[in-house]
Amino acid sequence: MAYRAAVVGGSGYTGAELLRFLAGHPEMDVVHVTADSNAGAAVGALYPSLAAAYPALEYAPYAAADLAGVDVAFVALPHGESQTIVGEVGERVARIVDLGADFRLPAPVYEQWYGRPHTAPELLERFAFGLPELFAESVADGPYVAAPGCYPTAVALALAPLVAGGLVEPSGLVADAMSGVSGRGRGLSAASLYSEANENVAAYSLLTHRHTGEMEWAIGAAAHTEIELLFTPHLVPMTRGLLATCHARPSRSGLSTASLLEALHAFYVGAPFVTVLDEPPSTKATLGSNSAHLTVRFDERTGSVVALCALDNLGKGAAGQAIQCANLVLGLPETTGLPAVGIMP
Amino acid sequence: MAYRAAVVGGSGYTGAELLRFLAGHPEMDVVHVTADSNAGAAVGALYPSLAAAYPALEYAPYAAADLAGVDVAFVALPHGESQTIVGEVGERVARIVDLGADFRLPAPVYEQWYGRPHTAPELLERFAFGLPELFAESVADGPYVAAPGCYPTAVALALAPLVAGGLVEPSGLVADAMSGVSGRGRGLSAASLYSEANENVAAYSLLTHRHTGEMEWAIGAAAHTEIELLFTPHLVPMTRGLLATCHARPSRSGLSTASLLEALHAFYVGAPFVTVLDEPPSTKATLGSNSAHLTVRFDERTGSVVALCALDNLGKGAAGQAIQCANLVLGLPETTGLPAVGIMP
Amino acid sequence: MAYRAAVVGGSGYTGAELLRFLAGHPEMDVVHVTADSNAGAAVGALYPSLAAAYPALEYAPYAAADLAGVDVAFVALPHGESQTIVGEVGERVARIVDLGADFRLPAPVYEQWYGRPHTAPELLERFAFGLPELFAESVADGPYVAAPGCYPTAVALALAPLVAGGLVEPSGLVADAMSGVSGRGRGLSAASLYSEANENVAAYSLLTHRHTGEMEWAIGAAAHTEIELLFTPHLVPMTRGLLATCHARPSRSGLSTASLLEALHAFYVGAPFVTVLDEPPSTKATLGSNSAHLTVRFDERTGSVVALCALDNLGKGAAGQAIQCANLVLGLPETTGLPAVGIMP
Amino acid sequence: MAYRAAVVGGSGYTGAELLRFLAGHPEMDVVHVTADSNAGAAVGALYPSLAAAYPALEYAPYAAADLAGVDVAFVALPHGESQTIVGEVGERVARIVDLGADFRLPAPVYEQWYGRPHTAPELLERFAFGLPELFAESVADGPYVAAPGCYPTAVALALAPLVAGGLVEPSGLVADAMSGVSGRGRGLSAASLYSEANENVAAYSLLTHRHTGEMEWAIGAAAHTEIELLFTPHLVPMTRGLLATCHARPSRSGLSTASLLEALHAFYVGAPFVTVLDEPPSTKATLGSNSAHLTVRFDERTGSVVALCALDNLGKGAAGQAIQCANLVLGLPETTGLPAVGIMP
Repeated sequence: MAYRAAVVGGSGYTGAELLRFLAGHPEMDVVHVTADSNAGAAVGALYPSLAAAYPALEYAPYAAADLAGVDVAFVALPHGESQTIVGEVGERVARIVDLGADFRLPAPVYEQWYGRPHTAPELLERFAFGLPELFAESVADGPYVAAPGCYPTAVALALAPLVAGGLVEPSGLVADAMSGVSGRGRGLSAASLYSEANENVAAYSLLTHRHTGEMEWAIGAAAHTEIELLFTPHLVPMTRGLLATCHARPSRSGLSTASLLEALHAFYVGAPFVTVLDEPPSTKATLGSNSAHLTVRFDERTGSVVALCALDNLGKGAAGQAIQCANLVLGLPETTGLPAVGIMP
Repeated sequence: MAYRAAVVGGSGYTGAELLRFLAGHPEMDVVHVTADSNAGAAVGALYPSLAAAYPALEYAPYAAADLAGVDVAFVALPHGESQTIVGEVGERVARIVDLGADFRLPAPVYEQWYGRPHTAPELLERFAFGLPELFAESVADGPYVAAPGCYPTAVALALAPLVAGGLVEPSGLVADAMSGVSGRGRGLSAASLYSEANENVAAYSLLTHRHTGEMEWAIGAAAHTEIELLFTPHLVPMTRGLLATCHARPSRSGLSTASLLEALHAFYVGAPFVTVLDEPPSTKATLGSNSAHLTVRFDERTGSVVALCALDNLGKGAAGQAIQCANLVLGLPETTGLPAVGIMP
Repeated sequence: MAYRAAVVGGSGYTGAELLRFLAGHPEMDVVHVTADSNAGAAVGALYPSLAAAYPALEYAPYAAADLAGVDVAFVALPHGESQTIVGEVGERVARIVDLGADFRLPAPVYEQWYGRPHTAPELLERFAFGLPELFAESVADGPYVAAPGCYPTAVALALAPLVAGGLVEPSGLVADAMSGVSGRGRGLSAASLYSEANENVAAYSLLTHRHTGEMEWAIGAAAHTEIELLFTPHLVPMTRGLLATCHARPSRSGLSTASLLEALHAFYVGAPFVTVLDEPPSTKATLGSNSAHLTVRFDERTGSVVALCALDNLGKGAAGQAIQCANLVLGLPETTGLPAVGIMP
Repeated sequence: MAYRAAVVGGSGYTGAELLRFLAGHPEMDVVHVTADSNAGAAVGALYPSLAAAYPALEYAPYAAADLAGVDVAFVALPHGESQTIVGEVGERVARIVDLGADFRLPAPVYEQWYGRPHTAPELLERFAFGLPELFAESVADGPYVAAPGCYPTAVALALAPLVAGGLVEPSGLVADAMSGVSGRGRGLSAASLYSEANENVAAYSLLTHRHTGEMEWAIGAAAHTEIELLFTPHLVPMTRGLLATCHARPSRSGLSTASLLEALHAFYVGAPFVTVLDEPPSTKATLGSNSAHLTVRFDERTGSVVALCALDNLGKGAAGQAIQCANLVLGLPETTGLPAVGIMP
């Protein structure tokens, strides 16, 4: 019998992608979905893409009591809101996967990047950092998981093996990343308008993007060292997809592209959603999937390392990763219900 | 044990989409794939999206003998090429689903629209017209199926129920359809270049598009009458998706939007891939799926009928439909391995 | 010495396009621009594209008194707002070009399509219908001009010559039109989001789009007859551009594609912004310009006429047309400051 | 009386953009345009966007003799072809602006990056490096100019003032740049297809892009020092536009974002096509113009400098820059006939 799953905050793009993946998941059934601002609406009215799979499902207003009997709750709320409900959700649901930023960082680091104290620091120790390729054991232990977002996932997958392997310096790291517009969510803003975002590329949040803290934390935790990284995100005119182009200085001599590729291959042996390529990865090859594609180069001329990672910001960068974490917490194979194949063209 | 499937002509976009769907199909295994111009290449090199699913599969040059032992062959060759090989394929493979135009039309109609005689007319009677929503029984009987393309599928799904139900006139039909650029295939041409197709809408093949013959034939066969339809295709700047906006004159009085919607609902009861909506359908809601979304209106002011159909030209308009047909021919549930859920956003 | 121009409502897309064209206009200087919601902002802050041309210009709140001394006022307000200010603007400014829908229709037709009575019907007779290719004399007479929007301009340019020339029937007309997303303006709505509009085509406002009234009125006025037209607009994933594909029934025998093309050529002799092409027009060829591209076909097989028109919805469909009208009202050559060349690729 | 201009190689995207700008140039008339592969075709047939401006112009096959009487020749040929014709063109035409890579680098540097010896090294000294913001005097002296391409223009505009001002180190420079697909030209290749490039971001030419040499040379020449830069280009799904995000290490203490912005402002005083912004620049704000938009930041946290430059790869990155150079060589104001205003939205 399948596990009973609930999605708290199911009307945003991440919520919709959770519902899409769960529609094809053989071991989880969606029994409840909440969305305060769309309460009462049919899921299929807001997302006609989902109409055939959920002909009768409606968004309910959030109420903790409605979650009784649920086996696993996915929480896809705006940043800051998980802190207010995870406690009461946890009284009814044994396993929680949070897709927000609330439980990804130690309290002091959270305060540094978010500019306010954490309001539920006592719950932090219950959460694993939900990047299974780096922290598989703690994710499986759960009981709660805070799945990182698209930028930290891509940058950490590209750089963590190199830093952890002692191949590159932990400081002076640079990550220039390009994200599709769905990364901004479904909220209304001028920068998210088609006529503003189309045929346009621009950087944003120069120097100060909050996900920098997650990247430094995740890479540092995987490599057991302090990290310093400058992150510059860019908005590019596509709906989905994220590419991180990362720069690092070698920490020892004798590196080559071949040896770096070999290091990545070795690090990700047994990781079903990571593919290490000889060629530069394309975001499109991962579209709609839970895959991440990587490559790396050593530049003899300038003596520097370039590592790249492509993924779908709503797949491996959000909903797919959350389900991968839920699979692990539930003791299922981590690939259950998750496509590794992208949609191309 | 799963059926053994082969894809003949697997390097084009339709072939890639067949491989994507088949990667997730529980009852078919891809045992062979051909592509003359890419022979020797790894599938995952041409389509990194497929690398994780087919780590060892390579394109082979076409040779009929290689198909021995195959249970079902999907043929996705350029128009005109199926005629030359279906005979010899049929000596080795019991079930064939052709995705080209070669076996969709009676020989005289074929000659009228393609400007040359059919070279294998004796095989035509072995083929069912692969639009299961209109011709389910003959598709299941097989043994061969010629799956119609994207434009005829969308226009026939929108208009056939209305003509067959005696609600609209069989002549004076108009279909303006808009297709994503992947409908042009992977071949190199200036009109397929990003810089030409992006931020651009234009009609093409005015008055003479060859699929007009298929539309008239399919609607006429479903409605048991002669059809006359003017079809105008447009290229719009998106990769996938197709919308057909169809106009018809009522053949009796008393029509209303409500009665027309009801007629569509009734016609498509039990059709798992057709969703009749109150609102205008969006191509994006069908992206990556085998679904078709429909609606219809009666305009009191001008006394005319408008019917719309949206689908993914590579899904229900090509590879998805072919697999739906193969499922039926093999005696499987027609939904096996085929998503009805689109990717949105 | 150049004329002094003001833009009332200059922060929307139409306003920005007016400012772009006027930056290169040798006979008009922008001396004032208003935008209530952005009052106080620099034009170059809202539109960095305009920063180099207007380094010191700021949006002012609207106040009629500020328009004293202005020679020509462009009014680009949301529908319904022109009615409330044109009277007082007219006390200070001799020539007004309104880009909204308020003064394009006779009062009863306005009420029919907009569902409320016109609030300044006494001013209607002061306005010419600003489609110079059909109504050049009355536009030049002014003193006020109501420039039609993108859909009516495209459909009227395609059909008016055919109806006026007695070539096609004035009833049973069908227009399927495809517009870029900038036609929805800069207002925030889910349907205007990049992630919703991208890779998506859908029809909207089925049967009821308000511009239908303008189309019928303009074609009817040009052809001196009553018109009946069914208009279906579609949103396509591009920022700018509009294509109208129009269908009509011949009103006499003996038509041919050649004779119809000849009729269009003859009708538009001396129209500097209309190009009649043998090939189907592309929206992209008109991007950023004030041009409209047309073609026409007669289908012997079904006995029907197809006429197509492509233009830039913000150019010939809005700001370009308004400046063309202003040129005429001011006695300037109508091409002054207006490019006929599109941006391609 | 206007100067007589010729375009050698006028059927590619750069050639089309030259023709577009020249159509509105008050001091140059296009008297001849060549295109071997499209010889005999009307310019307006290949580019309907240009039909209204050049109703009678046809592409001629290249023949040096046809250039007699021409005042300025723009050469927009594939890389390597200018070397073979500039000698004979120079016998007939006093002023040449080459848009290819053939005459931008000293012979040894050319050979290093292009892998073959220069075939006309004796002509190199006649060419100025056509980036007027850095080398105005030598451009004006001419008599020939080699205008740099889009990537070197953007990266040099961002970094040269900082290196030349002694603010950042000349080594360890990193440039991640994102270009629209038109940068690949009009040639047919799979990577330029809409269905491959759309909804896709990928890096290419890792470590080895030939324009790296131009960047290092131009920045070094402007700063009178040796440069070492790692350049990584990315293809993003838009037709036009280029953004360079550049990283550098400070060469002295006490830097701040304010002081760096001030340095850029000071450096570009009097440069009509460079706008220094406080906010991150958007490619779209420069679309269709000859403008470049810049900003810069100093990151206190990591002690590093980020400089960004946006431009239109076909405008300031190609055809616009070439005309700016031609203006200078001809003694005209450098802004003649060149828009500084972008098309937005």
